[in-house]
Amino acid sequence: MVDIATRVYNHNWKIDPIVRSVLDTDFYKLLMAQTIFRRYRDVAVTFGITNRTSSVRLAELIDEGELREQLDHVRTLRLSRGESTWLRGNTFYGKRQMFSPEFIIWLEEFRFPEYNLEKHDGQYVLTFEGPWIETTMWEIPALAILNELRSRNVTRTMGKFELQVLYARAMARVWEKVQALKALPGVSIADFGTRRRHSFMWQDWCVQAMIEGLGDSFLGTSNCLMALRAEVEAVGTNAHELPMVYTALVADDEAAMKRAPYAVLADWQQDYDGNLRVILPDTYGTTNFLADAPDWVSQWTGIRVDSKEPIVGGEEAIRWWRARGQDPKQKLAIFSDGLDVESIRRIYGHFHGRMRLGFGWGTLLTNDFRGFVKGEELDPISVVCKVVAVNGRPAVKLSDNPTKAVGPPEEVERYRRVFGIEEQAAQPVLV
Amino acid sequence: MVDIATRVYNHNWKIDPIVRSVLDTDFYKLLMAQTIFRRYRDVAVTFGITNRTSSVRLAELIDEGELREQLDHVRTLRLSRGESTWLRGNTFYGKRQMFSPEFIIWLEEFRFPEYNLEKHDGQYVLTFEGPWIETTMWEIPALAILNELRSRNVTRTMGKFELQVLYARAMARVWEKVQALKALPGVSIADFGTRRRHSFMWQDWCVQAMIEGLGDSFLGTSNCLMALRAEVEAVGTNAHELPMVYTALVADDEAAMKRAPYAVLADWQQDYDGNLRVILPDTYGTTNFLADAPDWVSQWTGIRVDSKEPIVGGEEAIRWWRARGQDPKQKLAIFSDGLDVESIRRIYGHFHGRMRLGFGWGTLLTNDFRGFVKGEELDPISVVCKVVAVNGRPAVKLSDNPTKAVGPPEEVERYRRVFGIEEQAAQPVLV
Repeated sequence: MVDIATRVYNHNWKIDPIVRSVLDTDFYKLLMAQTIFRRYRDVAVTFGITNRTSSVRLAELIDEGELREQLDHVRTLRLSRGESTWLRGNTFYGKRQMFSPEFIIWLEEFRFPEYNLEKHDGQYVLTFEGPWIETTMWEIPALAILNELRSRNVTRTMGKFELQVLYARAMARVWEKVQALKALPGVSIADFGTRRRHSFMWQDWCVQAMIEGLGDSFLGTSNCLMALRAEVEAVGTNAHELPMVYTALVADDEAAMKRAPYAVLADWQQDYDGNLRVILPDTYGTTNFLADAPDWVSQWTGIRVDSKEPIVGGEEAIRWWRARGQDPKQKLAIFSDGLDVESIRRIYGHFHGRMRLGFGWGTLLTNDFRGFVKGEELDPISVVCKVVAVNGRPAVKLSDNPTKAVGPPEEVERYRRVFGIEEQAAQPVLV
Repeated sequence: MVDIATRVYNHNWKIDPIVRSVLDTDFYKLLMAQTIFRRYRDVAVTFGITNRTSSVRLAELIDEGELREQLDHVRTLRLSRGESTWLRGNTFYGKRQMFSPEFIIWLEEFRFPEYNLEKHDGQYVLTFEGPWIETTMWEIPALAILNELRSRNVTRTMGKFELQVLYARAMARVWEKVQALKALPGVSIADFGTRRRHSFMWQDWCVQAMIEGLGDSFLGTSNCLMALRAEVEAVGTNAHELPMVYTALVADDEAAMKRAPYAVLADWQQDYDGNLRVILPDTYGTTNFLADAPDWVSQWTGIRVDSKEPIVGGEEAIRWWRARGQDPKQKLAIFSDGLDVESIRRIYGHFHGRMRLGFGWGTLLTNDFRGFVKGEELDPISVVCKVVAVNGRPAVKLSDNPTKAVGPPEEVERYRRVFGIEEQAAQPVLV
């Protein structure tokens, strides 16, 4: 029997919105937003999209009108009453009232600011200018929209049966991955796949698969809306934008630049404690960061190994903790760079029992449709949304992998000199 | 939005019927029924269920009340107007009016006769007694019901998510099989999986997968209802019950017994021609059957290789056709015994170009859930519904594989002597 009301309602949709909630974002954006809100809310920060997979010409695949509709729809969103209640009443990392009433009131009033959209050489030039506290909110929805519009561009030409087979194969693949990971005793894995997801509905299914299949090994999801709906943990800590902005703000003073990444941590530990005290050391090179870190940094709970080869990065952390008189077995190492079953298994096999491990599984959880359609039309791409300017000055990220460096070449060179970066081994960026 | 009417309607179902149409049966049953209708409609023939996979104790898995409800529901079915129209107006094997008006009038009035249901040693003893033309109709629905109730007994304890993963994996598996078969140029494959299907809905999906994935390599389905609905060919020819009954009717006269299987063919070619003239030679041993066959039998279109090892059976057919002055390249060999991708590929590789080939893919198309649940609870079993008595005398089938022999041991022995069967190689029966 056809539900006429549903059919008619569906006909009325002009667009099928990709992002339908302010909370359809990563939890770390809210944590960082609160820190920004308290200290730097009005700093002018420009974010911009970069498609590192330049062979995929997004501006030729994604219709500009559709992209604008999706971005415009995000600008109509506001925090709902139930969402606000969840932020106020829920426990995050074991703690109540993680977010201050002032911050939540701000978030209730928040609207996404304007965007600038142009095309250049087959790519979209999509930037967000304005107060840091507002522009920072665009990162995740902008990326999710670009990725899902690319998926839709492929799936819209497929028949009903083909679609059913496509998702059946994807489900079977994710389920096999989840079963393989479940076999690692005591492993802890979180969904970090919002930004690169094939689609909202698909990420939602993947989270459900982890809940059902991983049991206690499922840490939670970085997606706030999915954590709310599925009643699971919202997870995440902080990202490169904090040291990038802090450093750009003092870019005239090279001594202050070197102190800036530690200033981020000093502010952060005023705001958060426990498992939220996780260092992200690679913004301007991990080795120098650790060598020059004040001793209180080594007392933090853990480290996120992101752009360095994970075994190398993990061993470096262990050596550093030991040198600082810390017991690595009490420490937490979070791995989050292009993970999949094989790399998780390898890292787990290498470090299990030597430190606490957490895995932030992203793109290859929520967007692994490789081989399911002709060509590579549904293969994931590496598109990012990064700080490009702070109060009119360029922002820079070096990372441990020069392929991931961000910023104008001359500024990248200067930062390398300031932070004493020697040769770095380039590694391919898959996702 | 919930469709309240649909929900309420669904609540009203006392049972969820497995067989909902007189046409939810194999096409060969209708072809044979017409031949029976014209000559032997009132012969008393008893059919009985045998579960060759005796380790699976069906009477402990399937609730007797539910089984009776399903069988009783079948007894309420009658040919619908649209179904009758399809039988009258459709083309079968390129021919119109395959079924006579008298036969269709009979089928319109047909009701399934009573059944006898008991339990013995963990198995159901399910028999159908009455006029051959009526009891023959029970074979397929009885088997489909037993198989689907066994599936439902497993799936009813599974959660919504588990079920979704189960069917996603099954879909991915069938689709991979279909893609592998599509790679064989010019192969012809039909669905023969009604009797052993996991469920009606699942068979329906598998047929859709073959339509979508095989293109011209899809011959059709043996299921009349699915052929009607999907507007594809209904396929099938004849089965062992014809020679079994014909032979049992003259079981006092050993010379007449030896002639009986040829009498079946003589009647059949009065009723059908072209691609429906396919010999099923193995009821009492293929080798003797072919050696003693009248010459007109070698002029038939093809042969079905069922219980003999397929390469051996196919080579035997080629030798026989050559010896009778026939060109094997003009002939059709249909393989239908426990097929799956590997065996189809092997048979195709061996015979392609030497004769026309057709594959009747059954159990491992419509019921391959092996490895998807713990234990072997969804693995297919070998349950059959065979003629056990004719006018009070036992019926016998020898086949080329003694594991598949049917009948009381002393009668099997006598038939072996009458038909001159020497040693036969036993082969395991998987499905």
